[in-house]
Amino acid sequence: MQANSTTPPDPPRSRARRKRDVLARLRDDVDLWVASADATGGAYLVPLSFVWDGSTLTVSTPRASRTAVNLVRAGRARVALGTTRDVVIVEGDVEAIPIGTDIGLEDAHANATGFDPRTLAEEYVYLRITPHSIQAWRETNELADRQLMRGGVWLD
Amino acid sequence: MQANSTTPPDPPRSRARRKRDVLARLRDDVDLWVASADATGGAYLVPLSFVWDGSTLTVSTPRASRTAVNLVRAGRARVALGTTRDVVIVEGDVEAIPIGTDIGLEDAHANATGFDPRTLAEEYVYLRITPHSIQAWRETNELADRQLMRGGVWLD
Repeated sequence: MQANSTTPPDPPRSRARRKRDVLARLRDDVDLWVASADATGGAYLVPLSFVWDGSTLTVSTPRASRTAVNLVRAGRARVALGTTRDVVIVEGDVEAIPIGTDIGLEDAHANATGFDPRTLAEEYVYLRITPHSIQAWRETNELADRQLMRGGVWLD
Repeated sequence: MQANSTTPPDPPRSRARRKRDVLARLRDDVDLWVASADATGGAYLVPLSFVWDGSTLTVSTPRASRTAVNLVRAGRARVALGTTRDVVIVEGDVEAIPIGTDIGLEDAHANATGFDPRTLAEEYVYLRITPHSIQAWRETNELADRQLMRGGVWLD
């Protein structure tokens, strides 16, 4: 989160530019980091692959995994795309979608991630995240205007 | 966490090789992802810079920040170094160290991260993480042997 002293950072990007960069990552990236927590405040963190349909993110993980149990309990997720110096933070509501519910989503997920939980012995669940907040920043000079979406609405 | 189908993954690394790779990241990387949670199970996730002293990781963040409050409450952290396809997960106990307690640590942190919280108006705190568990994997073929440290002891 802090600028490294060895190289001066680029000037801060405009909000419009950041939105374009975020949408490109959502479209092209394969993985993200998923934070979750249990009811007693035990934090968890894993990387997962995802698919973006233009308005929601979907991941898939074993139904019995800590991440799935935590996210279903909480009903919301905080995930990070990109790198620690090119951060995209998405917060959103989580909907659990059992296998067999939405074939189009399942095909899109398999195509985007290169793995298909429908083929596995262990029971997986799809978790669809509908963003209500999106932030993006690279170095500390971009922190002030990092908020790009609030309440599910892109800021101008 | 899933192998992408477009390129076959490299063969899994040995445990000794993974330990070397992990130690190189701890020594050379600047940033990591920190997951934390409040007492009611609200998860949080941010990137922070860190310094490694050979056996512990130290980050610094505002004392009033969600991450500091969460980690001090929980007394433990789960952090990730690297990328989603070259993952290092560290879990450990957290000790809060107020500014002015350990000048050597403060100098080492400033040197490693390129920022010095001692110079800022806002009150920061150092959070030292002593690892008890370390995992490392790249693709799914490395998941089986991802555990490298357990109970604070490197596995052979």
